[in-house]
This record gives sequence, C-alpha cells and structure tokens, in this order.
Amino acid sequence: MRVSELSHTSGVPIATVKYYLREGLLPRGETTSPNQARYDGSHLQRLRLIRSLVEVGGLPIATVREVLAAVDDSDTSVHDMLGKAVYAITPDADDEQDAHHDRAVAEIEAMLTRNGWHVGDDAPARRTAAAVLARMHRLGQDRFTANLDAYARAAEQIAETDLAPIAALTDRDDRAEAALVGTVLGDALIAALRRMAQESFSAKHFPPTTHREHR
Amino acid sequence: MRVSELSHTSGVPIATVKYYLREGLLPRGETTSPNQARYDGSHLQRLRLIRSLVEVGGLPIATVREVLAAVDDSDTSVHDMLGKAVYAITPDADDEQDAHHDRAVAEIEAMLTRNGWHVGDDAPARRTAAAVLARMHRLGQDRFTANLDAYARAAEQIAETDLAPIAALTDRDDRAEAALVGTVLGDALIAALRRMAQESFSAKHFPPTTHREHR
Repeated sequence: MRVSELSHTSGVPIATVKYYLREGLLPRGETTSPNQARYDGSHLQRLRLIRSLVEVGGLPIATVREVLAAVDDSDTSVHDMLGKAVYAITPDADDEQDAHHDRAVAEIEAMLTRNGWHVGDDAPARRTAAAVLARMHRLGQDRFTANLDAYARAAEQIAETDLAPIAALTDRDDRAEAALVGTVLGDALIAALRRMAQESFSAKHFPPTTHREHR
Repeated sequence: MRVSELSHTSGVPIATVKYYLREGLLPRGETTSPNQARYDGSHLQRLRLIRSLVEVGGLPIATVREVLAAVDDSDTSVHDMLGKAVYAITPDADDEQDAHHDRAVAEIEAMLTRNGWHVGDDAPARRTAAAVLARMHRLGQDRFTANLDAYARAAEQIAETDLAPIAALTDRDDRAEAALVGTVLGDALIAALRRMAQESFSAKHFPPTTHREHR
C-alpha cells in the first residue's frame, strides 16, 4: 500500500506517518519510484505499536525510538529490552530530602528484601515508589506502609500473569513485542480494572445515600 | 504563618500558592491586615494534597478544584466523592469503531458479570479498559483476554487492600481524604511496584546474557 493508504487504514495523519519515517521510528517502505514507496502489514503493525506507546503509555518520541531499536536488535536480550522499556516509561521521581523520604526509602528496601525481589539499584521504579510513599507519609496517610506487602503480592501476581505466557513464546521477536505491549498497555489496563474494582467495592463499603448509580 | 513561609515550608513557589488561592483550591487564610493573611497546618496539608494530585496524579487544576470541593462538602457521601475523583482521573478513551472494539467491549462486560462487579454503565474505566484491550487485539496480542480474570483478581485484591482500612475510619472527612490519596497516589505506587516485580520476574524468566545488572 502507499503512504496515503497506510495513513487511512491506521487513522494516523499522513504528516505524522512521514514524521515517524523521517525520525526512523517506522522503517522505510520498498521504493517503487523516486517519489513513492510501498508499505505492507508490518508497517501497519509498527504504526499501531507506536501510537499505543505514545497515546496509552504517554512515551515521548525519543523514548519510543530507543525502545523500538531495542525490540528490533536481536542481539539485545528480552530482559535487557524489557529493562530499557520499563526504565524509560517509569517517571523518575525527585523527592524532598527529609525524614519522610529516608523512611520511605528504607521501607521500600525492606519490602524488596522481605519478598526476595531482585531489582537494580538504579531502577527508577525504586525511587518512584519511595517518592510516592514519602508523599503519603507527608499527608499523614501512614496506613499505606502496613499495606505495602499486600500491594506487593498483587504486583507479583500481575507480573507473573504478564510474563509467564511470554516466556512460553519461542521466537525472540515475538517475545520482545509481547513483553513491550504487556508492560505499557498492561499498566493502563490494570489501572482501569482497579478503578472498576474500587467502584464496586466502594458501593459495598460506603453505601451510597440514594439508590441511583452515582456519576 | 504568612504566605511566604507557607511557600517556603511546602516548597511550592509563592506565585503558585497565590494562584491556588485565587482559583479557590486553597482556602483563604485568616486576614490579619488589609494585605496580609495568616495560614496554618491545614493550609500546608491542603497544599501538599494539591501538589500530589497534580504532580503524581497528573490532574488538571479544574479537576483538582472539583474533587476537593467534593471532599470538603460533608453532604457528599464518600462513595459519591470517590466516584467523582475516580471518574475525573480516568482518561476517557476514544476508540476506533471496529470488530476489535466490539469484541473488547463484550469481553469487559463478560468479565464484570463473571466477577460480580457493580460498575456504572457510564464509568470511564469501562471504556478505557475496552479501548486498551481492543488495541492489544489490533496488535495481535490475544493472550491478554485469557489473562483478564487473573488481572481482575489482582485488581480486586488491591481495591480490598485500599478500601477496607478506610471503611474502618469513623470520621467522614478523614475517610474522604484517605480514599482520595489511596486512589490517586495508590495508582502510582502500584505501577512502580509492578515494574519492580516485572524486573525481578524478568530476570527469572528471561535470564540476562551477562551477569551484570541490566540498565
């Protein structure tokens, strides 16, 4: 198909498609004349992946390029590719340097040790988790520390669900793409499920005053 | 304390504090002279809550104002306040109207029925979950449908952990603020825990090629 059809089928504007081609996110099509190239299903698939990473994951274009380069590089192990993707999509958190910060860092550290998780010292998620926990403490919400292990068990269950079926895939490229989609889109899916579960549990724990559905 | 001290203690620039006062997010202090007002610990706490909703939850100022008005209105039940907050922080998803969309909507619907969740027909999380699932299908990642119940169980566990301790609080305002913090900051905390769990499981399922920590 031509670039116009690629744009039409994917719903991505032509100018955006051309931008991705220029930036190297989308591989060039097969040149059929000096001004034309032909694209196929693999381009459509890649375009959908880019849009998902941008629209659902909120990744900047430079990060998408870096992550896709790791997906495409068969010398990069799936663990390293996944690490690159996970590190890239985790917002790095600056935190105030106070007693709440120190306490939260120690609590996350203790949780990791208690649960036997192997997490790099420079993992942004380590700092993000500590920064969020410190904010909770500053807001006087200390109950979250007591809940940390319960949340960790849920996170373990999710990670196991995410990754176990991918480990069964034999092709490295299939694995890499599935792991990427599961990581980035999986976050959004789980956040949405959690919100529905909360709504359902909230109706149980905090009975609404009227019988109408709240809105 | 004066506005300058409020700014200094919270680390929020004076101009931003004044903006929140003008916009009605932060209640006015007690007027001590025509040009001065006095602020106390409750203002500091409210300022920290606003910054958390903006910086961690990514909420627009108009949404923060709306959610805080519901927190402050003792006639609003905790269920309704929480509903308002959860609905406000859930990005509303536009989806292509295709067979993948219809399939995903039906799958989410079936999951809710199967698990006995009570979720409003107009809940944005319903559409978000379906839109993410539809994207996964378009990307050829069908394994997520099979995982939906496993994710739902993890989401239930998280919601139960979130809300059960809050239900034990007796004061309506304490409940409202704890529920809000748990919902907005809890999302970020769980996302970070999930990423650490993935890193740890990834090392197990996809052994790295070298013995060094990946980065």
